Amino acid sequence: VIDQTLLPGRLELLRLDSPAAVGEAIRSMRVRGAPLIGVTAAYGLALAIAEDPGTRAIERAAQALCATRPTAVNLAWAVSRIGEHVRPLPAAERAAAAWRAAGELAEAEVRACEAIGRVGAALLSERFPVAARPLEILTHCNAGWLATIEWGTALAPIYRLRDEGRAVHVWVSETRPRNQGLLTAWELREHGVPCTLVVDSAAGPLLASGRVDCCLVGADRIAGNGDVANKIGTALKAVAAKDAGVPFYVAAPLSTVDWGLADGRGIPIEERDRGEVTDEFDIAVFNPGFDVTPARLVTALITELGVAPAGDLPKHFMELGVLHPARLARPGAELES
Amino acid sequence: VIDQTLLPGRLELLRLDSPAAVGEAIRSMRVRGAPLIGVTAAYGLALAIAEDPGTRAIERAAQALCATRPTAVNLAWAVSRIGEHVRPLPAAERAAAAWRAAGELAEAEVRACEAIGRVGAALLSERFPVAARPLEILTHCNAGWLATIEWGTALAPIYRLRDEGRAVHVWVSETRPRNQGLLTAWELREHGVPCTLVVDSAAGPLLASGRVDCCLVGADRIAGNGDVANKIGTALKAVAAKDAGVPFYVAAPLSTVDWGLADGRGIPIEERDRGEVTDEFDIAVFNPGFDVTPARLVTALITELGVAPAGDLPKHFMELGVLHPARLARPGAELES
Repeated sequence: VIDQTLLPGRLELLRLDSPAAVGEAIRSMRVRGAPLIGVTAAYGLALAIAEDPGTRAIERAAQALCATRPTAVNLAWAVSRIGEHVRPLPAAERAAAAWRAAGELAEAEVRACEAIGRVGAALLSERFPVAARPLEILTHCNAGWLATIEWGTALAPIYRLRDEGRAVHVWVSETRPRNQGLLTAWELREHGVPCTLVVDSAAGPLLASGRVDCCLVGADRIAGNGDVANKIGTALKAVAAKDAGVPFYVAAPLSTVDWGLADGRGIPIEERDRGEVTDEFDIAVFNPGFDVTPARLVTALITELGVAPAGDLPKHFMELGVLHPARLARPGAELES
Repeated sequence: VIDQTLLPGRLELLRLDSPAAVGEAIRSMRVRGAPLIGVTAAYGLALAIAEDPGTRAIERAAQALCATRPTAVNLAWAVSRIGEHVRPLPAAERAAAAWRAAGELAEAEVRACEAIGRVGAALLSERFPVAARPLEILTHCNAGWLATIEWGTALAPIYRLRDEGRAVHVWVSETRPRNQGLLTAWELREHGVPCTLVVDSAAGPLLASGRVDCCLVGADRIAGNGDVANKIGTALKAVAAKDAGVPFYVAAPLSTVDWGLADGRGIPIEERDRGEVTDEFDIAVFNPGFDVTPARLVTALITELGVAPAGDLPKHFMELGVLHPARLARPGAELES
């Protein structure tokens, strides 16, 4: 994996060769981004199964991986898929099968992100016809290929538009306390997309001034009613966008939807270390890693299966024939393939 | 002055003995806070007059001081008051008169802040009767005694409530890129007021969750219609507070009102150095120091002359008999005393 804590200053690869190394990399955010930590955890479980293919050992390893970061549902979803896949097999075959399944999951995420790029680019092209100035997009955190495997979620439509020759400029929100906005600025610059870094608070005047055509962010977990958990700072942008009449889009693969969850109140919000905010040790700190944007502030979801209204997601995807009602009961329910 | 760039790590006094030293201290934010830079600039002009009491030299020095930071109107207001005060006097008497006038201005700011504390504490006591939990206030940047001379603006009612024995807890917004929230946390802790530091983005979930009773911030310039320029990040909090039904109060002395300015569009917004945001030199940066909160998002202004609706301010204060219509034409118009 790329050690993302060293970017944008240094691009360094890190070899994760044990479940413990995978857990550490996810917890410390060397590996980050909801889809990427899902796939990385899947490989982590495969490494654990290679060490001990017993059913109880697999369960313990899965629990340890899921505890590293609680908010992104992709992690629990990916780990549970690998577990379910190997459970019926003889112990001797489990490690190889888990490794193959993790690889398939990675491929599926790449295909989903590519599709999100196509769907999102088509939506933005239709909604915002070519004008004298570039299309101005505000994003938050990093939802590019660093956070996925290829393409990204929120950045996939932007890369696609760039490839189609459309002029795009991106306002990149710093994303305190971990400054993942720098990762986004690095990614965009490497790919020739002009961008400008701003502090998170600058979204206020940018949105109010008419300088931003739309917001486009990723997601860590989406409830059935369309409430979106994403990196802390997303919710303030959504409410300011609504106030300014600027569309607010969320791009995410359907592996991010927690089908059985009625609304965002049920999403566990990770509280991270105080040292991320300040090293002054006699000041009390509250450091939630995520916030929940209510569905009423989300203009639409951009998924690999098309643009979805940010309303009743299970109903929408059942009507599309891709979600079976029986699967709604458990978190991370699988789509019909 | 206290060199605020060293706080909260180190409390160090700095002697400013020339107009150039005063200008540098204001520009580099060693001295910061709208009321405090007004008074400091007044003393800076007195130092300049001691060097050269000629009318043109005074004008040049006044212009140089006003150019250090363009957004806070208190600076231009204080400098122009000193200039007007000494102009009719013989050159030999100007330096001493300017020094006395700067001292009177400082005293007037202290009295104004003390009155803001009384007015604000009474408002909050009435609006939020004592409950089982402490009164929960969210503030932004630093509008305490560090930013004024004594008491502060937004923090004055909090200190007053504490003195009255009311339990108060303050959520302190970090205030990127300069992290003045740390100054507020330091001030509050020194005075025994419990507080918790959060990143600016955390205002979203805090306001939406019902954990905050009201927002209370200062101001750098207020237009006649009640639009409020304050530290970048204020506007996002105001729109989120409105969405959550949480009152949003602005505390400021009337020296902060730019009576002749119709609305917030006329307020010059300082753009500061990119290095405040990142030292990665190949990333483009936009770093506005302030934003404008529209009057419709402000529940009320807390001033030394009482609580004012954030609507037509000139009309309100003319009806109170403290503002003469003829004075509206020029910025920083003086109130009848």
